Amino acid sequence: MTQNKLFVVGMGPGREDQMTGEALRILEQCDVIVGYTVYLKLLSERFREKKQLSTPMRQEQERCRMALEEAQKGQNVAMICSGDAGIYGMASLLYEMRKDYPDVALEVIPGVTAASSGAAVLGAPLNHDFCVISLSDLLTPWPLIERRLRMAARGDFAMAIYNPASRKRPDHLRHACDILLQELEESCPCGYVEKIGREGTRSKTCTLRELREEKVSMFTTVFIGNSQTEILNGKLITKRGYPIETTTDFRRDY
Amino acid sequence: MTQNKLFVVGMGPGREDQMTGEALRILEQCDVIVGYTVYLKLLSERFREKKQLSTPMRQEQERCRMALEEAQKGQNVAMICSGDAGIYGMASLLYEMRKDYPDVALEVIPGVTAASSGAAVLGAPLNHDFCVISLSDLLTPWPLIERRLRMAARGDFAMAIYNPASRKRPDHLRHACDILLQELEESCPCGYVEKIGREGTRSKTCTLRELREEKVSMFTTVFIGNSQTEILNGKLITKRGYPIETTTDFRRDY
Repeated sequence: MTQNKLFVVGMGPGREDQMTGEALRILEQCDVIVGYTVYLKLLSERFREKKQLSTPMRQEQERCRMALEEAQKGQNVAMICSGDAGIYGMASLLYEMRKDYPDVALEVIPGVTAASSGAAVLGAPLNHDFCVISLSDLLTPWPLIERRLRMAARGDFAMAIYNPASRKRPDHLRHACDILLQELEESCPCGYVEKIGREGTRSKTCTLRELREEKVSMFTTVFIGNSQTEILNGKLITKRGYPIETTTDFRRDY
Repeated sequence: MTQNKLFVVGMGPGREDQMTGEALRILEQCDVIVGYTVYLKLLSERFREKKQLSTPMRQEQERCRMALEEAQKGQNVAMICSGDAGIYGMASLLYEMRKDYPDVALEVIPGVTAASSGAAVLGAPLNHDFCVISLSDLLTPWPLIERRLRMAARGDFAMAIYNPASRKRPDHLRHACDILLQELEESCPCGYVEKIGREGTRSKTCTLRELREEKVSMFTTVFIGNSQTEILNGKLITKRGYPIETTTDFRRDY
């Protein structure tokens, strides 16, 4: 039985060469590309020939329905998501809504999420157990976000924080830092990356106390170190615990 | 100033088309590829012409030193890691050891980690806040792993569990489930994927209670749902909380 296919494609941080070969091949082969306007604009010229469908921010359900309806009509459809399609992407919503479109088969094509691509810019802050937490309270009550921050700190997890701010929530990162400062040292090494893989990438390392005062945009991913994290030559590094043998005495002051 | 470059490259789950264009380009351009034997074998024929250096499992420091020394000599070097280079990969160890090789510049090239690629096979289990936890106690004391499992459960995080077993640790997943069963319902939806993106991929969904009895290999990634996770048509789905409007009455029994 062949079914109408809808691919949910993780496009990575934005640059075409940060997409997987599989993701690129699916975009090349499909008839229709559906996505949030900002992400469609990140695609290269050659995809402009395809039928492209879009909705503004926050109209995720409408965007998913468009994609499901195109697939139901027999089109090969790709729904693009930034980063990974299954990490704060449209994969789960499409699986829920698919109930109304029994002929449509869904397939998730994974991509490089901002935890990975942002970490690579800063060094290696997530090189051991870590949590990924979004500060957006559009669909999640703030007390649950707060609880997760606390539990992540108490478990000595490194953290990647998505959606640290938006125009309507300029203070979320400061509130999150206030929670974390109750659990962690103020000197805890942190960092953030803005516009990963896009024009104007900016990154910074700082302490948790300093992070509280930083102004970050909605295109920022924030990283909180754990007890094994250090800033080494400007890079944010979470050690895995190897007992390092060195060839010189250099490491003694380290 | 040009420096000798050492790239730490995340190769994704294994198939070449699950690597990013950037990772592939770097492997094509480098002189030497260093990696764990199993990962070198996953690379396609055309990379066999390059100088390849390898050490067996567990000799990570020796492998990193080989890579740093080749770079110090002026070679373009790529150290390959499965999944993402900065998630349980060699990135942080190289940053630590780089201290002895001041002429070598490191760059991390991110890849698709098993949390993303395994989740895509199962559906969308990590579609909201989640934790990544390794059950390997080679470098991490077991009580800390236990604490992290507990905190992850108490924070209502979905979880991706790496290294759930090995020949020397056949019972780690069972022990982890015993901890989680003290915190979560036994009906908590879970799943696992073996050999993601390689020959013989196998996946299964089950409850937390059932997971305790499963025999999994070291090439397995395990997923634990949170309070918003359901198994829908055999897929493990963590809902983000959209209040779904349906076009039919179908959803009423859902």
